[in-house]
Amino acid sequence: MVVFAAMSEQLLSKEALDPIVKKYYLQLNPPSLEDNTADIDRIKKYLKSKLAIDNIYVSLKDIARFSKILRQANFKATVAILNELHRFRLIDMEAGDTTDRNYGIAVDLGTATLMFYLLDLNTGKIIDQISAYNPQIKFGEDILTRIHHAGKGNGLKELKECIIDSFNRHIKLIAEKNHCSLNNVYVLAVAGNTTMTHLFLGLEPATICREPYIPIINRPDLFLASEVNLSISTNGHVLVFPNVGSYVGGDLIAGVLFSEIYKNSKISILLDVGTNVEVVLGNSEWLIACAGAGGPALEGGAVKIGTMASQGAIDKVRINPATLEPTYSTIGNTKPKGICGSGLIDLIAEMFLSKIIDSQGKVTGNLNSHRIVKTHEGMGYVVAFKEETAGGQDLIISEADISVLLRSKAAMYTILTTVTSMVDIKFQHLKQFFIAGTFGNYLDPKMAITIGMIPDIPIDRYKLVGNSSGLGACMALLSNKKRKDISRICDGITYVELNVNTAFMSLFNAARFIPHTDRSLFPSVKM
Amino acid sequence: MVVFAAMSEQLLSKEALDPIVKKYYLQLNPPSLEDNTADIDRIKKYLKSKLAIDNIYVSLKDIARFSKILRQANFKATVAILNELHRFRLIDMEAGDTTDRNYGIAVDLGTATLMFYLLDLNTGKIIDQISAYNPQIKFGEDILTRIHHAGKGNGLKELKECIIDSFNRHIKLIAEKNHCSLNNVYVLAVAGNTTMTHLFLGLEPATICREPYIPIINRPDLFLASEVNLSISTNGHVLVFPNVGSYVGGDLIAGVLFSEIYKNSKISILLDVGTNVEVVLGNSEWLIACAGAGGPALEGGAVKIGTMASQGAIDKVRINPATLEPTYSTIGNTKPKGICGSGLIDLIAEMFLSKIIDSQGKVTGNLNSHRIVKTHEGMGYVVAFKEETAGGQDLIISEADISVLLRSKAAMYTILTTVTSMVDIKFQHLKQFFIAGTFGNYLDPKMAITIGMIPDIPIDRYKLVGNSSGLGACMALLSNKKRKDISRICDGITYVELNVNTAFMSLFNAARFIPHTDRSLFPSVKM
Repeated sequence: MVVFAAMSEQLLSKEALDPIVKKYYLQLNPPSLEDNTADIDRIKKYLKSKLAIDNIYVSLKDIARFSKILRQANFKATVAILNELHRFRLIDMEAGDTTDRNYGIAVDLGTATLMFYLLDLNTGKIIDQISAYNPQIKFGEDILTRIHHAGKGNGLKELKECIIDSFNRHIKLIAEKNHCSLNNVYVLAVAGNTTMTHLFLGLEPATICREPYIPIINRPDLFLASEVNLSISTNGHVLVFPNVGSYVGGDLIAGVLFSEIYKNSKISILLDVGTNVEVVLGNSEWLIACAGAGGPALEGGAVKIGTMASQGAIDKVRINPATLEPTYSTIGNTKPKGICGSGLIDLIAEMFLSKIIDSQGKVTGNLNSHRIVKTHEGMGYVVAFKEETAGGQDLIISEADISVLLRSKAAMYTILTTVTSMVDIKFQHLKQFFIAGTFGNYLDPKMAITIGMIPDIPIDRYKLVGNSSGLGACMALLSNKKRKDISRICDGITYVELNVNTAFMSLFNAARFIPHTDRSLFPSVKM
Repeated sequence: MVVFAAMSEQLLSKEALDPIVKKYYLQLNPPSLEDNTADIDRIKKYLKSKLAIDNIYVSLKDIARFSKILRQANFKATVAILNELHRFRLIDMEAGDTTDRNYGIAVDLGTATLMFYLLDLNTGKIIDQISAYNPQIKFGEDILTRIHHAGKGNGLKELKECIIDSFNRHIKLIAEKNHCSLNNVYVLAVAGNTTMTHLFLGLEPATICREPYIPIINRPDLFLASEVNLSISTNGHVLVFPNVGSYVGGDLIAGVLFSEIYKNSKISILLDVGTNVEVVLGNSEWLIACAGAGGPALEGGAVKIGTMASQGAIDKVRINPATLEPTYSTIGNTKPKGICGSGLIDLIAEMFLSKIIDSQGKVTGNLNSHRIVKTHEGMGYVVAFKEETAGGQDLIISEADISVLLRSKAAMYTILTTVTSMVDIKFQHLKQFFIAGTFGNYLDPKMAITIGMIPDIPIDRYKLVGNSSGLGACMALLSNKKRKDISRICDGITYVELNVNTAFMSLFNAARFIPHTDRSLFPSVKM
């Protein structure tokens, strides 16, 4: 709960609370011969005259129901009004005063992970948060496999139904756990990458991965949750974050919204590490975005002992250079089950600083240590012996694992180098460097600098924003101003394709060393 | 076709053509690496940049379909755009250039009669028109019986389904007859009284006829035709004219729209005689509306030989005062099947002028004429002998029929007197007097003055506007400016309940004579 309070505060500090759905308790005068306004018009008239809410749409199918509730409640009832920006929509009516029950759910729809945030729209507070694997994983770990699956027979339908089903289960779970009726969950905001968004909407993603890489849609309009079989309030709506291109999706736009780099006159960068590495660079005048491969290792996907940043994951590691013995902490302080992204970065950095590995990631340290063992994939280092682990197996990182990680970090550094060079910006000129993504919560920037993953700039310029996609999605539900900013961001952003050309490959190869072949780029890394 | 051309001209003369649905042929550049806009966004971008159409909504369920059509058509396709006033909606997409197929249907939804107008939205022309009885008649002739039926078991559903079914049959009929695909019928405008509108929308009308006479809704928003199971274009929409009160419905608002009394600085009156008598009085500053019973006799409902103003109806009658022999004309010049409203008015006036009846409607003329006969309902006059009629039966008007007609005309005159007195207006001050309704096409104002149905003002102030509801509905489809005026009219109109009090009854009784007990009110009527 402390975490939620902190996150809520962070959200509310940025913009005044002005949620997408508001509830009002109406105490209407019953009709009379002198005041013969029709039932639905009576509600609209009240909202206009007392609350200055004009241009309110009521769906045909709701007219009879709302009129009945209103009359049964003796004209004292609560309405829920959705702000569609260009007009309002009366989405619910309940007898009596139910204004205190007004909820929304924000979802970070990741290729690997789903994160659900339950929001009290009246207070702007995050009530709870749950995460889950994206169940589409059973059809393919990565985006390309899923796009491929979508093209086969019933594939698209399967992928869509499985994600919707998971949404429904988790929405129900988080609502029930917090004693919120699904009838009072009026809105969902979903931020995902372009492919995940297409699959969620049941749209064929084939053109996304084929030149010239064209999504079917970038900016879907608000729609009824029932249109995709999501079970929230009858007229609950879904806000899907817009994409900018096939590889810059709504999740990144949500991150931009949260980090507010689009509002700052000084140049900042947002680095979002999920399944891809996504970067937005710019300020209030301009924004450029690009994306590249490089993520999975850092999400714990490609490394044998890697795991999600969840309970039991080692998130911090230190190694005594004299004894080569590690100390570590785990999320939730339980027995370790694996190592998450931030833990892996710590581990490589510490192995390097304690000279277990050299700048190429090869084990060259004291081969007599009981921590250093042979594996099927080269030499390895035992982070935790089986006696202390949750799974009862040694947690060993091998040279092969390290090589994968170094490729990942090299990709990330090369993307950062490339994108800044494009606009002739030096890393030193960045005033803020936001790091987002599931591992962004736990990352130690000093360690990431040590391995040469991120540039060697003053530590205080790094801002760990955690799940900025999820929090950006929350923000869109809490502030109509922020929601309008989404279009502004999309209008102003330029999507650049990173051509993996010779120049890129040469930069990449130079970046595969710890911290880099050009040590002058990392003056703070001493060993 | 001459009639349609004249009507079309009348519609187009009032406001520039700016239809609710417009079609555009788009020749888009196919996507490329340099221009990677998503399919749907590509359409929106084109519409915005080339045609200045911004804020376009695309329904989730259409995204995949539209993208597919666009790609199959090699990015050369036609879009249909619905103007929702506060935003646009992309409702259809067809391969190639189909801009020439753009239709709408306006419907006058009467208690007794339905009138369908097929419109070419590109030219603003009325292509065709068909009429039919309202099939709900089988559940009850008048509004009250239908409201009663709606309250019984499945009654509301029956009434709704039967009107929707009739709409579907007639829409199909008029479209097929004119070689228009239903897929290209994008919009319906429906103008009906409050009860007919409620039944059409499937809304319980019970509260309309019970004090304090409150409809469920007065101003429904645009909705999808599919929401009420109407079969036009997939995303075809329905515009239902708003009501002002339980007894002043959308048909009257459509009439106001057509007559344009709301735009004139001088005071005019609109009298719409359907099942009820409905009156709107006012100018560009103010409007008052009221309604009362009195219509059926004039629609040919309550008189034995009465009939709809359709083929075979006697619409004009003259009687030779010397011989008492009539001459008449019928609609379509066929054998007479009955007498419509305008014919009945002529008949009474002529019977009075030729002294067959006295000012109380009693037969006092030459009882030896073979035209004057005894009936089960008092004395009668034979308008047409069986040899000359379509049905092979004498067409006789009885004293009982005349009494019903005189009550109707008295009601009408009393309503006109009451409503003008309320705002202290003398009939002489009315600059224009619009008469609408099915019989408005054929009425001879001079005859109506003779029987004391309408005030004795200069004949040239009377404007017969025919089916102003239907034409007003057409107008709403052809001009967005006119459509906006609908709200303006509703905002500005005051609905007054006519209390059938002692004063009213005394006026009514005085008006039951031909032309009136106070002959000074009808100086032009000489006999």
